[in-house]
Formats: sequence, structure tokens, C-alpha cells
Amino acid sequence: MTSEYVPGLEGVVAAQTAISLVDGANGRLVYRGYVIADLAEDMSFEEVAHLFWHGRLPTRSELDALSLELAGSRQLTPAAATTLAALPADTDPMDVLRSVVSVQGVEHRLEKPTIPLAIHATASFPTILATYHRRRRGQAPVPPRADLGHAANYLYMLNAKESAPELVHALNTYLVLLADHGMNASTFTARVIASTESDLASCLVGAIGALKGPAHGGAPSAVMDQLEQIGTADNAEHWMRDARARKVRFMGFGHRVYRTYDPRAKILKAMCERLNPKFYELASRVEETALSILHEEHPERPQATNVEFYSAGVLQAIGLPTDFFPPTFAVARVAGWSAHVLEQSANNRLIRPQSEYTGPEPRKPVPLAERG
Amino acid sequence: MTSEYVPGLEGVVAAQTAISLVDGANGRLVYRGYVIADLAEDMSFEEVAHLFWHGRLPTRSELDALSLELAGSRQLTPAAATTLAALPADTDPMDVLRSVVSVQGVEHRLEKPTIPLAIHATASFPTILATYHRRRRGQAPVPPRADLGHAANYLYMLNAKESAPELVHALNTYLVLLADHGMNASTFTARVIASTESDLASCLVGAIGALKGPAHGGAPSAVMDQLEQIGTADNAEHWMRDARARKVRFMGFGHRVYRTYDPRAKILKAMCERLNPKFYELASRVEETALSILHEEHPERPQATNVEFYSAGVLQAIGLPTDFFPPTFAVARVAGWSAHVLEQSANNRLIRPQSEYTGPEPRKPVPLAERG
Repeated sequence: MTSEYVPGLEGVVAAQTAISLVDGANGRLVYRGYVIADLAEDMSFEEVAHLFWHGRLPTRSELDALSLELAGSRQLTPAAATTLAALPADTDPMDVLRSVVSVQGVEHRLEKPTIPLAIHATASFPTILATYHRRRRGQAPVPPRADLGHAANYLYMLNAKESAPELVHALNTYLVLLADHGMNASTFTARVIASTESDLASCLVGAIGALKGPAHGGAPSAVMDQLEQIGTADNAEHWMRDARARKVRFMGFGHRVYRTYDPRAKILKAMCERLNPKFYELASRVEETALSILHEEHPERPQATNVEFYSAGVLQAIGLPTDFFPPTFAVARVAGWSAHVLEQSANNRLIRPQSEYTGPEPRKPVPLAERG
Repeated sequence: MTSEYVPGLEGVVAAQTAISLVDGANGRLVYRGYVIADLAEDMSFEEVAHLFWHGRLPTRSELDALSLELAGSRQLTPAAATTLAALPADTDPMDVLRSVVSVQGVEHRLEKPTIPLAIHATASFPTILATYHRRRRGQAPVPPRADLGHAANYLYMLNAKESAPELVHALNTYLVLLADHGMNASTFTARVIASTESDLASCLVGAIGALKGPAHGGAPSAVMDQLEQIGTADNAEHWMRDARARKVRFMGFGHRVYRTYDPRAKILKAMCERLNPKFYELASRVEETALSILHEEHPERPQATNVEFYSAGVLQAIGLPTDFFPPTFAVARVAGWSAHVLEQSANNRLIRPQSEYTGPEPRKPVPLAERG
């Protein structure tokens, strides 16, 4: 039995998951029974990853074991290191990540996705990105340090020095906030690939490709570009009314699910105010103006500042270059992707929808010689 | 509004497409208004690719232009060649393809999918595979020849000599038959990624990852393995009854869509009989036995020999190693994948379904120190 065409699969339930709940009506994001606001400031990314993979928060000794395994998985394979060194120095970092994760994950024969493989993949993302960034600046790679956590190691490998504790904490909070989000397009991609019984690397590589799209994770740098064009808080109203008249889209607003303020954006906004006051001054005015204009145009629609808007200010304060915002989103989301792959694999059914044919009715082909 | 959970999205129409129609009820596969049986023996893969990308069969001069552009796109980039050379010599060829297509497709900034990019990608698949195969046998790569078509070039680059015309013709027919097939899991993956407005390489890399899964394209080598185990036609009945008692699955049977004999399998079966009589003798007896046992078990289910069953015999006759069957499927399907990406991009809506949360109700997390 075939239903009618559902554009964008909007409202279609494509998976059951215990990993996260996007409770759009109440503005809540829940990870395996914990509201995001209760995790964001106090849990390490490693604890949340354990929660995703094992279904519960780790004990101290489980957390130590996981940290040890992550520390042992941060090295690139020789093939991955060679690939990284061969890529042009102006490559989009999302393409670097997609390619090197693929090479890092090559196997001799098909392996089923497992938690150890999820740990290995998750560990490698910061190494890939940091190595690439240093290389394009003509700097030697910095090996990871076993005594640093995941967020701290990422910054250490990027900068060759430890970052201030408040910046490490901010990055950790960002990673926790972005680690999963229901059936978003990249997670869905990972699950579709997993449903063919493919390997974990294939799922992650597909997910990275989906996250790259500006309609998904590829927009945070667009937020920065727009803020740069606006320039000052006092210019916001003028610039934005004018932009709107020219049908320019406001970057960082709109989400298909939330009907109230995105709970992640709320936390990131407060972090921005603390860590990046200059960004905050401009961004909060732009937000206010955008919401007011959007409300005038569509009073029936809810407030819609999305997670990328204040993410940009937080990641900037942490010291990440703008083109590293999307791949840093992937550093967080790989925990969720891999957990979804494991969940899909544990109770699998091939995801194979239907299409509706809109082409011509069958007729005989004209042979090449008669086609003129 | 959210519907109930639809396992595997079975029966859900996730896209409208003019590219192909899988008419399961009538056992027909239609490419833009042409029944596959009318194309398989007479059309070149290039003509079918043109049909997919441009919506109509090419004139002679359009076909010449396309052939020229393909010929000019068969070289690997320096980064892709380096990556290929760095991969372990025992890497699964699907992982080689996934990784090198990713590297070959890296960009400085996001490019929208276009027909020229589709041509470039399609041209590169045989080069990647042939180069890898020669390398793992310790042989130097063979550059493509501008005077050979797509199928002929693939075999030429693999073997360093031209193949017999009947084998080139057989490979071409295989490529035409496998070039598209409605909303299968890899094509659907490509469209989900395209729906985020990502680039073509990201879509193709995701699709390769999905095709790798044994529940999709990763099974043809399993067909060969099973036939090898059975050994002789006379052993088929005994082996298969015994296997069935041990709940062993018959490889190469079953499809979610066709309710009659798969039209591609029919054509491939006839080719097998002609090109690979030894395989045919065993395979046709195995097929007969499998269908008879499956019918005894489920008389209500239709005959279900799938495309991979006789593909295996055809690809073996052509001289391809067994682990090249899945990536050769990709050599065909990239024409369809890229056409679907272009179609999705031309009239896009983000594919973002819902999930149903099955995890625990929200409660407060226990702090690490109290978790024991």
C-alpha cells in the first residue's frame, strides 16, 4: 500500500529512538530522559557520549575507561594522515572531514557498527580538523595529550597550548548541546545508510555530507557573514528592513520543529553574553530586530532563533575560525550519529521508501541514427 | 501533524521523480518513458546517462560532446591519486571508492550540483577502481583511451588491453540495467543529502556508503559465495534443503517492490546463458530449487529472483573479481544518483522526518560523584 507524496517527509515518523526527544511544543530537548538544561553546564561530552552509546550515564570508573579508550584512538592511520597532507590547503574543512573520516574508516571486510568503533571515530574528528588547520597555516601537527578531555584536546591540538578553563568549558557545553537532535537530516542519513547493514564509517561519511548543506549545518558561517555586513547594532534595523525588501533571508532563524524558543539557543545566548560581549551586543539587537520583522510578516509563527545563531558567537569566542563552525558541529554530532547507527542496527529494517513517477508514459525509443 | 511510525518507510512516497518507474505489479522498469527491455541491448551507457541528466536521448552530436567530456574527466586529481596509493592494498573496494570519490570531489567552497559535475564524477569511478585493482596486483595504472566508450574504458584500464566486443557489450548492458531503480536506499540517501543543499560529492559518497550494505548492493559476492558452497547443480537440492533447515538465507532472492519476475534479472539471465554457461548451469538449477522451496514455504509470495543473482554470472564472465561486483554496481548507479541529486536540487525541500521517542521520561541526572 502506498500513501500520497509527503514533501520533505514532514510529520512522517521514520524511526523510533530512545536517544533524544525534540519536544518542540514545550521547547525541550531530552537526551535519554535528561533535559538538556540539566546536562549542558555540568556534564562532560564524554559522559553524554557514554549516555548515548550505553543508555546510561557512566560511573567514575566507566568514565575513566572511556576517556582512556578515546585517548588511545586519537591517532590517524597512515593512510588518513597521507590523505590529509595531500588535500589542497584551501579545501572546505567539511570536505576534509568527509574524506579523512572515510579513509580512517576503511576496512578489509565489512564490520558491524560497535561501541568501540564509535569511540574510535568520535576520537578522530578533532585530530583531523586540528591537523588540517595547522597544516594550512604552515604549522606542524600537535599530538593529543592523554591527560586532556575531548574538548580540551581539540583546542590543544589546534593551538599547541591549553585554552583557558572557561573556553574549554564553553566548548564542552557546545558539544553537549549539539550532540543529538532527533531525526535531523544528517542523523536520518546515517540511519538510512545503517539500514542497508553497511559499516559505521559509511554512515558517518554520509552524515557529514548532509550536515555540510546550508539547510542543515552549513549555515553558521552565513550567520557571521550577515552580522559582518550589518556591522553595528545601530545599523541593524536599517540594514534588515532594507534586506527584507530585497527578499534577503535572515540567517539563523527558523526551525521546523520548535514552537517555542530553542532551548539550546537560550543556553548559548547566555554563554555569548558572558564570553563574547561584542558579538552579543550586535547579535542580540539583530535577533530582536529579526524577530520583530518576522513577527510583523507572520504573526502566527513562533519565535525562531535557531541554534546556529548564538553558536557562532560562542565558537568565535573559543577562537575557532568561521569555516570550522560546521565541522565542529560534526565533532559534537558524531556522538549522536554513531548512537543512532547502533540503535538502527540493533533493530533494523531497510529504509526504502517509494517514489511517485512523474515522467512520460512508456513509448519506443528512436534509434540514434534517426535522432538527427 | 505527525503520523504513526512507518518501519522502513515502506509504502511512503518520499519523492516525485521523472527519472525512473519501478512498476512492480507489471514487472517493468521504465527510464524516463522507455521500458528497460528496449534500452538494455541497444543503448550505450552514455546515452542513458544523457537521458537521465537532460531528460531525453541525445542526438549524435550531443552524444559525441558527452563522450568527449567524459574522456576529458577520467583523470584523478593529484590528491585522489595520492589517497588511492596510500590505502592498504587489502581495502574493501567499496571503501576505496567512497574515499577516493570524496577526495576527488573536494572543493574550496560549496558548489551546487550541475550536469558537468555529474559527468566528472561519473567519469572518475572506473578510473578509481581500475587503478586500485592494478595497484593491489602490483601493476602500473593504465591511462584511459579517448577513443573508447565508458564500458570499454573500464575494462581497458583494468586489463591493459581491449576486451572482446561481446564482453564490452555485456558490461554496457549491465551498466544500463543497473543505472537507476526508483527510490532505492542509496538513491534515497543521495536525495536526503541533496535536500540539505550540500554538494554532489557529498551525495555520491553517502550513496556509495548505502550501496555497500549487504541489504542493498553488497550482496552479489554473497551470491557467488553461496554458489561456490553448493558446488554443482546436482548438489543444489540437497544443499539448499539442508541450508533451509538451518535457517540459512538464500542469497539473490527477494525484493520489496517486484511482484513478478524482475525485468533486469530476466535480461541478465539470458546473457548469463550465452556468456557463462558453467555459471548458468549451476545458477539456474539453484534458482529453480530456491524458488520451489520458497514457494513451498510462502505460496502467497511472488517469484523473487533479484537482479544480483544473474548479475554475478555476467560480471564473472566479463572478468571482474568478485569484490568488484558492488563497486561496478556503483559505476552504473552513479548516473542515476547524480540525476536524482539534480532533480532534488531543482525543486528542493529539506527531507527531515520525525522520530518517535521511546526513551525514559525526564528525570534529574545523578552527579558523577554520586554515581559510584
